[in-house]
Amino acid sequence: MLCKTTAVYAGTFDPVTLGHVDIAARAANVFEKVYIAVADTGSTSKQPLFSTAERVELFQEALRGHEGSFVVESFSGLLVDYVRSIGASVIVRGLRAVSDYEYEAQMALTNRQIAPNIETLFLMTAARCSFITSSIVREVARYGGDVSQLVPENVSQRIAEKKKS
Amino acid sequence: MLCKTTAVYAGTFDPVTLGHVDIAARAANVFEKVYIAVADTGSTSKQPLFSTAERVELFQEALRGHEGSFVVESFSGLLVDYVRSIGASVIVRGLRAVSDYEYEAQMALTNRQIAPNIETLFLMTAARCSFITSSIVREVARYGGDVSQLVPENVSQRIAEKKKS
Amino acid sequence: MLCKTTAVYAGTFDPVTLGHVDIAARAANVFEKVYIAVADTGSTSKQPLFSTAERVELFQEALRGHEGSFVVESFSGLLVDYVRSIGASVIVRGLRAVSDYEYEAQMALTNRQIAPNIETLFLMTAARCSFITSSIVREVARYGGDVSQLVPENVSQRIAEKKKS
Amino acid sequence: MLCKTTAVYAGTFDPVTLGHVDIAARAANVFEKVYIAVADTGSTSKQPLFSTAERVELFQEALRGHEGSFVVESFSGLLVDYVRSIGASVIVRGLRAVSDYEYEAQMALTNRQIAPNIETLFLMTAARCSFITSSIVREVARYGGDVSQLVPENVSQRIAEKKKS
Amino acid sequence: MLCKTTAVYAGTFDPVTLGHVDIAARAANVFEKVYIAVADTGSTSKQPLFSTAERVELFQEALRGHEGSFVVESFSGLLVDYVRSIGASVIVRGLRAVSDYEYEAQMALTNRQIAPNIETLFLMTAARCSFITSSIVREVARYGGDVSQLVPENVSQRIAEKKKS
Amino acid sequence: MLCKTTAVYAGTFDPVTLGHVDIAARAANVFEKVYIAVADTGSTSKQPLFSTAERVELFQEALRGHEGSFVVESFSGLLVDYVRSIGASVIVRGLRAVSDYEYEAQMALTNRQIAPNIETLFLMTAARCSFITSSIVREVARYGGDVSQLVPENVSQRIAEKKKS
Repeated sequence: MLCKTTAVYAGTFDPVTLGHVDIAARAANVFEKVYIAVADTGSTSKQPLFSTAERVELFQEALRGHEGSFVVESFSGLLVDYVRSIGASVIVRGLRAVSDYEYEAQMALTNRQIAPNIETLFLMTAARCSFITSSIVREVARYGGDVSQLVPENVSQRIAEKKKS
Repeated sequence: MLCKTTAVYAGTFDPVTLGHVDIAARAANVFEKVYIAVADTGSTSKQPLFSTAERVELFQEALRGHEGSFVVESFSGLLVDYVRSIGASVIVRGLRAVSDYEYEAQMALTNRQIAPNIETLFLMTAARCSFITSSIVREVARYGGDVSQLVPENVSQRIAEKKKS
Repeated sequence: MLCKTTAVYAGTFDPVTLGHVDIAARAANVFEKVYIAVADTGSTSKQPLFSTAERVELFQEALRGHEGSFVVESFSGLLVDYVRSIGASVIVRGLRAVSDYEYEAQMALTNRQIAPNIETLFLMTAARCSFITSSIVREVARYGGDVSQLVPENVSQRIAEKKKS
Repeated sequence: MLCKTTAVYAGTFDPVTLGHVDIAARAANVFEKVYIAVADTGSTSKQPLFSTAERVELFQEALRGHEGSFVVESFSGLLVDYVRSIGASVIVRGLRAVSDYEYEAQMALTNRQIAPNIETLFLMTAARCSFITSSIVREVARYGGDVSQLVPENVSQRIAEKKKS
Repeated sequence: MLCKTTAVYAGTFDPVTLGHVDIAARAANVFEKVYIAVADTGSTSKQPLFSTAERVELFQEALRGHEGSFVVESFSGLLVDYVRSIGASVIVRGLRAVSDYEYEAQMALTNRQIAPNIETLFLMTAARCSFITSSIVREVARYGGDVSQLVPENVSQRIAEKKKS
Repeated sequence: MLCKTTAVYAGTFDPVTLGHVDIAARAANVFEKVYIAVADTGSTSKQPLFSTAERVELFQEALRGHEGSFVVESFSGLLVDYVRSIGASVIVRGLRAVSDYEYEAQMALTNRQIAPNIETLFLMTAARCSFITSSIVREVARYGGDVSQLVPENVSQRIAEKKKS
């Protein structure tokens, strides 16, 4: 039997933003255990800011003090296969804006078609984080802009260190 | 302490549609107890198809066979006050289309502002029900159109009876 | 058998705008005969600018010179019942903006459910008319604003005459 | 000649929210003088929370300390006529969400058609206020909910006083 | 003279989905002959699932039993040039979601600008297929997920065969 | 002190379209000096139609006769850094459609976070240009289609010359 009290929050998280941390915290208010599933992007093209291992580590650090509620790990393959593999039945997604919503709706309905007993639940990102996207953060970071208001402190520091080196 | 395993699914449900029943059933897959909270529209203007009492009864009938998972009752006042009054901490909403989403997002963020420890979770309505709205059903029903593909069987029958009388 | 070469373009048309005339003309480029079906709003509340009879007349005048392609008449009840009654199988709708699209999609899918052999086709309103809505025209007209760039000339004149009287 | 340094920010403001104050302040950062134009809704139906005079007063109070930059007054009739009457050429509007945007775009393009030398400029409401709408505030206020996070302090107090009386 | 009874339904169709077959069938209910125009993507980068020739073949197979109504072939260059070359004057497009609609509207209005006597008609995809996109199908297929509910049976089989080899 | 009377209109402008020229002209109606900031895309991948230098030149030519109001130049790095470097405090953006709006809202709110004293103002593109995008122009141009209704005359000529060579 799939466990209703465990939820999976998956994404690329390159990098994890204040919006992602907000959703993770909210999910932990509803579910006993939340798996943060970092998509292993392998060696694909799109110029990642951080490697998969770094992204797992950065999300873990950003949740410091709340270790009991979260497991952060990477996954590859189909998300629904990963969800089943850990015995969960709930996927959690954050919603921000409409373009978001369209894709999220398509993905949720497709996942339901291929895995009918896994349900996707959506949470609203906090209003103050509602405009933050990883891709804009990457762009700002690449040009040396200040991202300290957009990402957790540990991510901001790591980006600053990268710049120096 | 608010109970994480009880969720509230609120609406006017005039009338309850196949989409609403779909969301209620999905919520019951995730939460142990789902309160269906039918908004008491009192004697306000907008030409209701059914009274509050009828809407409660029709939703109850539509869930026949699954009584254990649901409580159907009416409420008045602010939804968050009702949610607190039954000791719940989760509001469940169905999502269909974008215009939907906009209003739902505003409502969820406003509710969060006035009741920070209540969380709103969204579920995708089944694709085959994604276009059904109570207001279109009311319009079709008023002109004597066939709504049997849009609402549960008991609602369809009740509408047919109304027409005769 | 329903006729594929006849299409119905329905609406309240209070008043008919340059956007409506644009869609009617485009429909006539694709279908041999286009029925302009003016919804009879009866004596309902919403402060119409023109009566049903006036709206039929104004649309007819606006199409002067192209009488062969069009039949303008009022209808009441469900649109799909009207479409069947004249032996047509195609409903034509104009699209402008997104909020539009949402409602149009819901209506088209509901109509398909209650009348599977009637198909709804959508046409894009000309870009230069894409922002014109009857409700904004009514508002501008009520305050005595100039609507001559928004509606056909005959409608603009009729509004000016109303003002004087 | 119309003055480019004066802008008009118009609305019903029933009641003025933190989002409205945010937009007014941003407009004052760009333009020397900002007219806050409160639409006189006269004795129309929709159950206003505050009268036109009260809405003017509440917005004025909410801007206390910045009187030099603002003129708050009511207007009736077409907005573009009011804008011309005070010799301005710029309308300022706040944007929040998509449903917003659609209507705003239609209105801006219609206004441009009937008054080509008046330009509409849009500003983004602060993210933390992006979900606040006057109609949801009215609804919460009517049921006695706490709106102190949604509106300026003076509005919150006035609502509380109304409740007592 | 361009023929009003022939319509063109164009796309990349990599792969053809149940949604595409639904739109093709609906178009054939309205038009006597429907050309399925498969865009020849040549040797461009984006990792196609199937070659142009395979995509033509798969769409043909999916329409088996209805050969009389359809011509499936590939095309390259501008769609409007292809449409003219076969003497047609109608382009048919399927609509699903809003993000869809935006791009479709831009494309339709651009095509109208460069070829004024070709009209684009939109059809609503069946609700049960409204979430299916070729790109999500490709993603699911690449990870070995079950796409049998998303694509015609022949496509599902071909994908399974590819996997084995 | 940042200058309120100077605005920056930035983009890739590959190529500049009639919509871009429309926004630039509108901005010049509101602000004394408008900097057209052409993003230097360097030698990145996405197959540009024109080089950065050509894009600057083409926008300059398209504004011929209005040199006094505009400065056209390229920039690299973060837009807000460029805006500060020329002593401006206003970014101007054009709005067309919803998908547009979403991204524009995210970008404006992110820029506000990293540069709080720079404000982004949005202008509506003229309705007749509301569907034109540089990427669709590039696609049409690549296939030899006629773009003369979509871009300024000088751009149309330059594209025709490129084709010959």
